[in-house]
Amino acid sequence: MAQSEETREEIRHSEDVQQNLREVQVLLARHRIVEGLVHRQEMPRHELVENLVHKQHIAELRNKLDELHPADVAYILEALPLDERLFVWDLVKTERDGDILLEVSDAVRETLIEAMDSHELVAAAEQLDTDEIADLAPDLPNEVMRDVFRALSVEEREQLREAMSYDEDSVGALMDFEAVTVREDVTLEVVLRYLRRFDELPDHTDQLFVVDRDGRLQGALPLNLLLVTDPDEMVSNIMVAEPLTLEPDDKAEVAAQAFERYDLVSAPVVDKQNRLVGRVTVNAVVDYIREESESERLSQAGLREEEDIFASVWDSVRNRWAWLAVNLVTAFIASRVIGAFEGSIEKLVALAALMPIVAGIGGNSGNQTITMIVRALALGQIQADNARRLFRKEIGVAMLNGLIWGGMLGLVAWGLYRSIPLGLVMTAAMTLNLMLAAVVGVAVPMTMQKLGRDPAVGASVMITAVTDSGGFFIFLGLATLFLL
Amino acid sequence: MAQSEETREEIRHSEDVQQNLREVQVLLARHRIVEGLVHRQEMPRHELVENLVHKQHIAELRNKLDELHPADVAYILEALPLDERLFVWDLVKTERDGDILLEVSDAVRETLIEAMDSHELVAAAEQLDTDEIADLAPDLPNEVMRDVFRALSVEEREQLREAMSYDEDSVGALMDFEAVTVREDVTLEVVLRYLRRFDELPDHTDQLFVVDRDGRLQGALPLNLLLVTDPDEMVSNIMVAEPLTLEPDDKAEVAAQAFERYDLVSAPVVDKQNRLVGRVTVNAVVDYIREESESERLSQAGLREEEDIFASVWDSVRNRWAWLAVNLVTAFIASRVIGAFEGSIEKLVALAALMPIVAGIGGNSGNQTITMIVRALALGQIQADNARRLFRKEIGVAMLNGLIWGGMLGLVAWGLYRSIPLGLVMTAAMTLNLMLAAVVGVAVPMTMQKLGRDPAVGASVMITAVTDSGGFFIFLGLATLFLL
Repeated sequence: MAQSEETREEIRHSEDVQQNLREVQVLLARHRIVEGLVHRQEMPRHELVENLVHKQHIAELRNKLDELHPADVAYILEALPLDERLFVWDLVKTERDGDILLEVSDAVRETLIEAMDSHELVAAAEQLDTDEIADLAPDLPNEVMRDVFRALSVEEREQLREAMSYDEDSVGALMDFEAVTVREDVTLEVVLRYLRRFDELPDHTDQLFVVDRDGRLQGALPLNLLLVTDPDEMVSNIMVAEPLTLEPDDKAEVAAQAFERYDLVSAPVVDKQNRLVGRVTVNAVVDYIREESESERLSQAGLREEEDIFASVWDSVRNRWAWLAVNLVTAFIASRVIGAFEGSIEKLVALAALMPIVAGIGGNSGNQTITMIVRALALGQIQADNARRLFRKEIGVAMLNGLIWGGMLGLVAWGLYRSIPLGLVMTAAMTLNLMLAAVVGVAVPMTMQKLGRDPAVGASVMITAVTDSGGFFIFLGLATLFLL
Repeated sequence: MAQSEETREEIRHSEDVQQNLREVQVLLARHRIVEGLVHRQEMPRHELVENLVHKQHIAELRNKLDELHPADVAYILEALPLDERLFVWDLVKTERDGDILLEVSDAVRETLIEAMDSHELVAAAEQLDTDEIADLAPDLPNEVMRDVFRALSVEEREQLREAMSYDEDSVGALMDFEAVTVREDVTLEVVLRYLRRFDELPDHTDQLFVVDRDGRLQGALPLNLLLVTDPDEMVSNIMVAEPLTLEPDDKAEVAAQAFERYDLVSAPVVDKQNRLVGRVTVNAVVDYIREESESERLSQAGLREEEDIFASVWDSVRNRWAWLAVNLVTAFIASRVIGAFEGSIEKLVALAALMPIVAGIGGNSGNQTITMIVRALALGQIQADNARRLFRKEIGVAMLNGLIWGGMLGLVAWGLYRSIPLGLVMTAAMTLNLMLAAVVGVAVPMTMQKLGRDPAVGASVMITAVTDSGGFFIFLGLATLFLL
């Protein structure tokens, strides 16, 4: 937060960012050549350290890094394999460590923190605002946090304790403590003079918060209004009397929706007594939105967390473990359903070739339904009275799809195996499995929502499990009944 | 954009938004009861129109709607079935139509526009800024756009033509024309006086743009600096001389990354000659990010576009059509692979029960790989020299997973069918299919990237197709070779 001014000139275009990465890689490659001489024992290590070329490479790299925005250094660190990453990390100025740690991904942050001793970590944390320290805290060793606490003022300790107390997905976790406050019974002239006493205003200050003596929020004074209004006007006359407020325990998603809906840049956070405790700014919200959609995508593919692309094989295996295990279980169940009909398959082996089609299309159709329902639930568009309507619609879609695609596949089955009953069974099984997919696709997310759980998580596994086992059962069952 | 001030007091918490929806629904339900009397012919229609209760319901609804923010009205419209949606839409004040049309989802916008005559549409469009009209333009009939053009000033026509000329995913499409500009050779005092002549500043004005006589961008003057600096200072002394700039043809994603990385609220957009043409603000970026992640999620599930939850069965079927067709083809191919081995299955029916496990786990593992690679590609973290490293890592993960899970399944197969060779074939097939999944999972997105296509689109279908057909082929092929 605090670095805004000095870095404003260093920010660059995304192509430049790529360019930076390449430059660093070139410098690293040159460095590696010299290092190579040492490894091949063509040069003793102590000579390397004295070597002018070597020193120059290091100096160039260091200069390059110094002129980059912390976010860009973070980007470069993420794109480098572990050994080079730590080498570069070592060259970064100590006083920038904290800002950069905030910017890197969780997986990469772990590798950096592992490489630092507690003294360095304490130094890095101490450069940050309390709300930022709270963001790092889960990754820091206990003794480091103890030392950090000791170095803070009483007020800051209180803030840090507060910031750490909030749930990760709450407004409190997005909040910072940099709200600029004014009183309502002064003129704008006074406010303007007060602001000139600042060296700079906190980033994303688009409004000042009007509080009374007890810190209770009375209103908000947008800078836009401050600037266009006659300075002799009183704050109380032009302030927005009932601004949108958030509470620390509100869900972060509530804040995100409010920012998006009402195009906010900042919003005050108040406690139950309407006392101003902090503010949320749009950059925190943007980061939250990105991270949410990122982690959703990862969890949909069954990755536990974002993966450092240079993670070891073993770390990767562990990251992907749980999902494969779940899938193994569901696949095993489906396999046992087939096993129950082995007698039928033995008599009519065409069933083995056709059954995956029924299962597969059911899974895809069910996932379409679920995606739509999860989205509507997230937007709060589904209530009891339109739930039934939705059910009916999805069943209708499934029946129509079943007749169209199932009919087509029935024709194909008939064409391949010259059996009209087989074609009819195929069509019927497709239609029934699509209807099953529709029912489960609506019911699963709605039930999970009712149970107070996230309807998006695991819904896709569940529906695939149902449509696989169900598809095999319906198709093989119908075939056993009518064909054998 | 222009409605900021009068609506600032109407914005609410997300729970309130739900509350609003429920209130509207209650009012609609009451209205429906009275309407019901007409339908059951207990009251002639002309009496209904005169009916006091009826009039009162309408008035209450109208008041309710008038006090809501356009985004909240949009939300309510999206959550209502078509007939009630159009009824409510009719009650909304005409002068708010434009703002609300901007806020609703594409699918719902279509239903609203269909219900309006061209006169209403022209009136709605005329209330908007040119960049906003450009957003609506694709949905408006030609004759409406002609009338809208006619009503604009020359400058506005130029802006509208420009805004409509940009690609949907470009910075130009996110841009607005509301940049406030100042000269560099004046004092801050002059700037402050100039600003006081505005009734209000455009939303998200966190900086003024410093331009020369020809409109060329010289720098940016953050309001934060303007407010804390001595008014006698010259603009040229305190302005940020080289602010981050965007160009209209830059990809929108570039802007999104810059805003996220550098925590921007607004950024100037300049042409090749460095002339200021507009600005991008963070609210446009937030909307873009949300829409992107939304449309990605939809396309992953094979939905062509977001679906109005009250869409007709037929519209839904069309929306989901393409994906099911693609899946049908890939499923059919996989089915034919099995068909080629019908002889083997006939001899050893256990193969039919075990083969979906091999195919399914391969698909899941491949999707994990693809998700990780697509993300790394999007962040630009993969270059030629670390691509090989990644390949090796993924193959390693696949082999380890194959030995662990494949080994376990081999044991299960042995346990179920008392055949050691069958268990070994199972293990080998799992390992090989996981390795296939890894190779394809890395190669497909990287190739698509090289061909200049979006690596995320369709990658998941492709990998599932490969691991299904491939899994069946590998497993049944090995079984035929070694077991029969």
